[in-house]
Amino acid sequence: MEFRLIDRIRERTAQGREDVRLGIGDDAALVAPPAGQELAIAIDTLVEGVHFPAGTDPADIGWKSLAVNLSDLASMGASPAWALLALTLPRQPAEHVQAFIDGFAEGFAQLAQPHRLALIGGDTTRGGLSVSVAVHGFVPPGEALTRAGARAGDVVLVTGTLGDAAAGLQLLQRGARVDEGDGRAAFLIERLNRPTPRLAAGLALRGRATACIDVSDGLLADLGHICEESSLGAEIEAPLLPRSPMLLGAFDERSARDLALAGGDDYELCFTVPPALVAEVQGDLARLGCGATRIGRMVEGYGVRVRDEQGHWLEATHRGWDHFA
Amino acid sequence: MEFRLIDRIRERTAQGREDVRLGIGDDAALVAPPAGQELAIAIDTLVEGVHFPAGTDPADIGWKSLAVNLSDLASMGASPAWALLALTLPRQPAEHVQAFIDGFAEGFAQLAQPHRLALIGGDTTRGGLSVSVAVHGFVPPGEALTRAGARAGDVVLVTGTLGDAAAGLQLLQRGARVDEGDGRAAFLIERLNRPTPRLAAGLALRGRATACIDVSDGLLADLGHICEESSLGAEIEAPLLPRSPMLLGAFDERSARDLALAGGDDYELCFTVPPALVAEVQGDLARLGCGATRIGRMVEGYGVRVRDEQGHWLEATHRGWDHFA
Repeated sequence: MEFRLIDRIRERTAQGREDVRLGIGDDAALVAPPAGQELAIAIDTLVEGVHFPAGTDPADIGWKSLAVNLSDLASMGASPAWALLALTLPRQPAEHVQAFIDGFAEGFAQLAQPHRLALIGGDTTRGGLSVSVAVHGFVPPGEALTRAGARAGDVVLVTGTLGDAAAGLQLLQRGARVDEGDGRAAFLIERLNRPTPRLAAGLALRGRATACIDVSDGLLADLGHICEESSLGAEIEAPLLPRSPMLLGAFDERSARDLALAGGDDYELCFTVPPALVAEVQGDLARLGCGATRIGRMVEGYGVRVRDEQGHWLEATHRGWDHFA
Repeated sequence: MEFRLIDRIRERTAQGREDVRLGIGDDAALVAPPAGQELAIAIDTLVEGVHFPAGTDPADIGWKSLAVNLSDLASMGASPAWALLALTLPRQPAEHVQAFIDGFAEGFAQLAQPHRLALIGGDTTRGGLSVSVAVHGFVPPGEALTRAGARAGDVVLVTGTLGDAAAGLQLLQRGARVDEGDGRAAFLIERLNRPTPRLAAGLALRGRATACIDVSDGLLADLGHICEESSLGAEIEAPLLPRSPMLLGAFDERSARDLALAGGDDYELCFTVPPALVAEVQGDLARLGCGATRIGRMVEGYGVRVRDEQGHWLEATHRGWDHFA
């Protein structure tokens, strides 16, 4: 099974990376790292029922398992090169396995190909459905973006829009179909199943962003990591949160705000830049198609605080975000 | 959970690899590959009930999940450097999770530490119990051992002894306990749960072995891969198969032979060398403690054939290996 899957992905991905000296088929792959570059390396696992709903299209699983890892490279400002894939599939009739593998390979390759990412290793085993992908990218020494470099006064920005993926998941859980209605559900579910890693944005932020993270667990959680690692706090203006028309069309204002604050899985970049560089960075990211919206700033202190349109601080409740009691 | 596990492994493993520029805790690790070396990269997954029995000691799972990957580096002649870990654990009471993680971390670190292997990334998720580990090692350009270089007339050798791990699994399945009897079961089960990756042997074979593979699926299957990739056949002399006194004490001659031929999970190296180098290689591997036994030779043709002590060819049956009918 292992080699059928791998072959199907190989057929569909860019060949001829000169830095791959020995690809799939031996006990290990051999690659030649470029001189004078550091390697950024990440691994992430998606488990059925945890990271994607049961019944998700295999092609979407293939795409997303790579996308969440490429997003880690994007947030470091690294350019992708090689990936390893470990796929665990339940025992099932051969035609189901084949259909799954065909779909998975197609989705994985659709994302790998434009980035010239080479799949150099794989392992396929029997068990509950889960996928681990490890990715490797290049970054010049000292230029990687981390969570640790933000300074008080830096502006906090995010690419794209927030809350769409979590909205898509809510719609799926309510039984929504992709093809229904006015295309809102289709857009939001696509944002859940086919996140776009912001690789070009990550490269453009090198040397300008002081800290960067991708929004996988939700803005508040992930910006919280920047705060911790930079020993600072952050103040976010809720009215500035970038939200798609489809999110605002499908959910009321407060739900849309809460999804943008706490919903995960958007894989946008949240980053900090000195005020003097904001306009330049926004211009560059607009030209890259994803845009960048300023949503707040880094301050002395601890943790992330959120202010509403009346200037009141919000606090977390079990149902979402509310005014301080 | 992720960071507790990772921290526990970090506490127990060698610190201060200068090539790790940014370790665990950001979206990706940053490492500086050594100039002029190729990287050997492999990934392998262990799933409960498939690669280890339910109820296996977490420390053994931690050890083995790294060992099977280091064995891939050994068979390439690479020296280990960095690892990534993706652990999926069932939902269970917190004290069970903690006990599992403590044990797993201890077993993983026991093997990582003497090899100065740094854990640089990890991901912990909920789901059926499985572990994926990716490893990275260094090898000088052109010196890696592959499956493809064997030549007709080369001698086939294996390190250590064969069949022990499969024998240990059979004993476990029969309800054997590690502490019973004369220590045979303890030895064989230890060979199953705590395989020794033959890293020093792999390094010693650089420039001398023409092909190499680790015995994970069983000698016949794995030597079969060398045959395929080298476009040759192999002839094995069953009486020459190295078998431990513990295997021979616990199983009859025919069962012990079949376990040595087809039992997996030994993680010994099977390799080919030109006849003129055999004595020198055997001397070096004896000094490294694992030894190397000549078991046959590479021939023109296809596939692996096995000859018994009377010079008759064996063939596979559903119960093991038998004379041609």
